Amino acid sequence: MKIGRLNHIGIAVPSIVAAWKTYKNLYGLAQSDITPIGEMPSQGVRFSFINLENSQIELIEPLGDNSPISKFLVKNPNGGQHHVCFEVADIYSARDDLVAKGATVLGEPRIGAHGTLVIFVHPKDTNGVLIELMETLERH
Amino acid sequence: MKIGRLNHIGIAVPSIVAAWKTYKNLYGLAQSDITPIGEMPSQGVRFSFINLENSQIELIEPLGDNSPISKFLVKNPNGGQHHVCFEVADIYSARDDLVAKGATVLGEPRIGAHGTLVIFVHPKDTNGVLIELMETLERH
Repeated sequence: MKIGRLNHIGIAVPSIVAAWKTYKNLYGLAQSDITPIGEMPSQGVRFSFINLENSQIELIEPLGDNSPISKFLVKNPNGGQHHVCFEVADIYSARDDLVAKGATVLGEPRIGAHGTLVIFVHPKDTNGVLIELMETLERH
Repeated sequence: MKIGRLNHIGIAVPSIVAAWKTYKNLYGLAQSDITPIGEMPSQGVRFSFINLENSQIELIEPLGDNSPISKFLVKNPNGGQHHVCFEVADIYSARDDLVAKGATVLGEPRIGAHGTLVIFVHPKDTNGVLIELMETLERH
């Protein structure tokens, strides 16, 4: 298994709409550089991607009462960097490889915000950084 | 001013050499994907870049007694996401634009790890995320 592209950085925020303003007002992006808000109820998040030339930022805010992001925002009330997402060719092969090497993979592969399978690797195994791995999208 | 490429994600770690092992052993990268350790005494850091297909990870560890990263590592002893770096065409123009909009820019433009001018924007203005802006490298 080898990681490929840096797909996105996940940034948790109290309000996606308020965070859009930062990227538009301070950093000069347009609303057309930003995807509409989507929801993943099973993961307790709303999300929106900011398209940069070579990668993306994923803004995430809590959805529902038991969102895993709520606890993060108690510690970081203004928001903060939440995870880093790398692409891999095959999620099951990546998962099996990581488990064989003793890493803690959180949960079973599931559909992520881009519609492909994702897993998360526990920060304790990766220098304190929560890592998401996602199957590469077909690029046309 | 408009941000361009996501140049890198800065990850603070207690030991760069130990962190290399994560990216080699777990994520399949080779030593040739990783740059040798450099030093920026004026900023109190050692650094090494991990080259991904489309972007980079910058590993940083404290250098000297008054490193700004030491405090971060007290709070995050295993390491953690420290900053996000976007490219801009002109650092002085970006700085002036940000200041005019009321953002807090930390210090004067100075030479960063890639040898071009950089500034940092205070996390309070950017959803809790420390943002580095760097002048785009000439790409050949």
